Amino acid sequence: MPPPKETEFTEALGEPVAGNGLLHRRAFLRGGVLFAGAAGAVSVAGVSIAANPIGIDAPPSMLAPGRPFSPYGSPAATEAAVIRSFTLNERAPGTGSSRTPHHLLNGTITPNGLHFERHHNGVPTIDPAEHRLYIHGLVDRPLVFSMDALMRYPMESMIRFVECAGNSGAAATALNPPRNTVQGIHGLLSCSEWTGIRLAVLLDEAGIQPDANWILAEGADAAAMSRSIPLEKAMDDTLLALYQNGEAIRPEQGYPMRLLVPGFQGNLNVKWLRRIELTNGPTHTKDETSKYSELMPDGTARQFWLEHGVKSFIARPSYGVNLSGPGLYEISGLAWSGYGRITRVEVSADNGASWADAALGEPIVPKALTRFRLPWEWSGQEAVVMSRATDERGNVQPTRDVWRTDFAPGQGYMYNGIQNWAVSATGEVTNV
Amino acid sequence: MPPPKETEFTEALGEPVAGNGLLHRRAFLRGGVLFAGAAGAVSVAGVSIAANPIGIDAPPSMLAPGRPFSPYGSPAATEAAVIRSFTLNERAPGTGSSRTPHHLLNGTITPNGLHFERHHNGVPTIDPAEHRLYIHGLVDRPLVFSMDALMRYPMESMIRFVECAGNSGAAATALNPPRNTVQGIHGLLSCSEWTGIRLAVLLDEAGIQPDANWILAEGADAAAMSRSIPLEKAMDDTLLALYQNGEAIRPEQGYPMRLLVPGFQGNLNVKWLRRIELTNGPTHTKDETSKYSELMPDGTARQFWLEHGVKSFIARPSYGVNLSGPGLYEISGLAWSGYGRITRVEVSADNGASWADAALGEPIVPKALTRFRLPWEWSGQEAVVMSRATDERGNVQPTRDVWRTDFAPGQGYMYNGIQNWAVSATGEVTNV
Repeated sequence: MPPPKETEFTEALGEPVAGNGLLHRRAFLRGGVLFAGAAGAVSVAGVSIAANPIGIDAPPSMLAPGRPFSPYGSPAATEAAVIRSFTLNERAPGTGSSRTPHHLLNGTITPNGLHFERHHNGVPTIDPAEHRLYIHGLVDRPLVFSMDALMRYPMESMIRFVECAGNSGAAATALNPPRNTVQGIHGLLSCSEWTGIRLAVLLDEAGIQPDANWILAEGADAAAMSRSIPLEKAMDDTLLALYQNGEAIRPEQGYPMRLLVPGFQGNLNVKWLRRIELTNGPTHTKDETSKYSELMPDGTARQFWLEHGVKSFIARPSYGVNLSGPGLYEISGLAWSGYGRITRVEVSADNGASWADAALGEPIVPKALTRFRLPWEWSGQEAVVMSRATDERGNVQPTRDVWRTDFAPGQGYMYNGIQNWAVSATGEVTNV
Repeated sequence: MPPPKETEFTEALGEPVAGNGLLHRRAFLRGGVLFAGAAGAVSVAGVSIAANPIGIDAPPSMLAPGRPFSPYGSPAATEAAVIRSFTLNERAPGTGSSRTPHHLLNGTITPNGLHFERHHNGVPTIDPAEHRLYIHGLVDRPLVFSMDALMRYPMESMIRFVECAGNSGAAATALNPPRNTVQGIHGLLSCSEWTGIRLAVLLDEAGIQPDANWILAEGADAAAMSRSIPLEKAMDDTLLALYQNGEAIRPEQGYPMRLLVPGFQGNLNVKWLRRIELTNGPTHTKDETSKYSELMPDGTARQFWLEHGVKSFIARPSYGVNLSGPGLYEISGLAWSGYGRITRVEVSADNGASWADAALGEPIVPKALTRFRLPWEWSGQEAVVMSRATDERGNVQPTRDVWRTDFAPGQGYMYNGIQNWAVSATGEVTNV
């Protein structure tokens, strides 16, 4: 039979729930194309397959054996464009970041090979048999742990996002380029199931002295990347993470161990963790003074503003993920908050004039990515679509204009403003 | 400073909750080794790092820049043993299976590269631009879908296990080798976040005729692997899955699309799905008659026993994951049920004489792997450890002996008996 003709979308069920075609979350579409082939059974690779009154040609893949087993799989060759993006810093090739292609992904878990990277002097090669974690400073008993010792501790698994403080910075500044993908704007964000040991267990073992109220965490990379973390957070849900999505953490994610500081600025999740020092007050390392502090309108800097605000973006449609003619689409994207669970994501298709509640994917895990979805019947007219997230603390994602009034021009750390996408009459999507 | 000496475990908190050293789930251990180095600051790569009153040598990884960014990451070279295992079938290299190394993993998500494989004639190479899905048979409107058409449909994400009907078969039969890893026994089991379209949406679109009560699902592989699925299940939570853990499904998992039939026998989750035929009654394909049916004691075969029973195993300790001297360990493993959520996992360290409840990892997702954990103070004496899972339907995992009375000798499909591990006085663990 001939290949199907151009997809036709002819019918949508459900009444609009907000302006410009947003539909009830249970709307259906009709995307299949009718077909009718010649009658007769099909014989494939010498095997007569099940009775098939309407002939369907066997594709080439059924006519010869496929390839055998592999010890460790990789994506299909036709998915070669689904990769992390990065700009090579020629003077310091290990400094910079690579970004997760959220416009090409779906779901909430980021595959390990596509988790964003942020390195300050490259990815170190560490032999886990030689690696040691030190806990010292204002403790009763300075301790050192080998990997073998740590493997005997009680562990815990938690699905959590990690987001760089600089994520979405491009959207915060005056530049805000119209032709930039979700990957380019929001790609310093990923979500995994992390497994490891509550840091509180190890700190308790060392014995916390009364004057300790912060910790310093330092990586074994050539930048000695170091951040201060409030002791209260270190004793709460902070994890010494050893596994990511089931397997040992990848080298670029801190192998053999990193901190997971749920909901807090990305680089507090110190990779290649080699020591934790208990301190009185924060240490004011280079990584929290020269960077990762926020310039205010009066010229002072805000330091240690650590929890990511509630945030969301639409990934489909977005720049590079265009519409191919009027009809039904699913608007879908990601929402998250450093303060806990997402409770609501509203979507607008008329530039914020009206809003409808999107469906939230289950389970809704605190401090993890939540996928939202809503059907949309696009009329073929120009439109601006956007999403607005709310978390269980009642925080609501602000508009870009509101967010920007709080900071000096050009300050892009910790941006969580609403992302607007303009859809042209031809279906091209741009950042506005 | 010198490397730490042999790990010492000197103190355990908490009273036993069951025989032979099972402890309350909040028990702690002391695995750190005291250290004291020379006083003085440390200079790393020309940068004077934070005040460090107890000298800790900088490891080699801090003395030279690391490697730069990568478009798609891979595990550390020192994790090269964490791979799928398989035996090459020389006459039919694409026929057989490869297994997930659960004894070396932790958490509940299986990384895509390590998801088990079961192929009947190899992994086909499919161009998604050419691939078509047909829905035909007892329908009002036979339909064909391209990938582009499917990408416009409403999607859904769900974390679910997939398990081969033959998983753990080695434990069911008289052979039951004592030296076999969790990977070798239970490795035809994996768990992912799957994203795709409810099959019900597409079947509704085709229009289900009144006499249809089963579907036939066929893959585009050279075995035309085909299974019958009750229409009721196809209209319930069955998904046409396009993404696995965020990215496009891997070739060996059915790229570009597969069925996800939550909780049901693995090969109903037909990979490389190319057609669905609505039928009256099951089709009795070769893949559900010559295989994947269960021989009963009276010589008849049980067909279409599709839902996996409640099941669990301990992964740490297990064969190949030995104990290194008396003291505290975490007993940890996986539990799951084809009928819904896991509600309880009990652990015994005295060969079933007494049992204690393990902690269950959150979120507990229906028809997904649940990680259980319990601290254990091993005395250094011989012991037999085992786990027993219960699901929300009240199903309780049976012993091996009870399970075997229902089937003919040698029948190993759909085995869900309790897994026992013997620990010798030297800490070696074997399957019993």
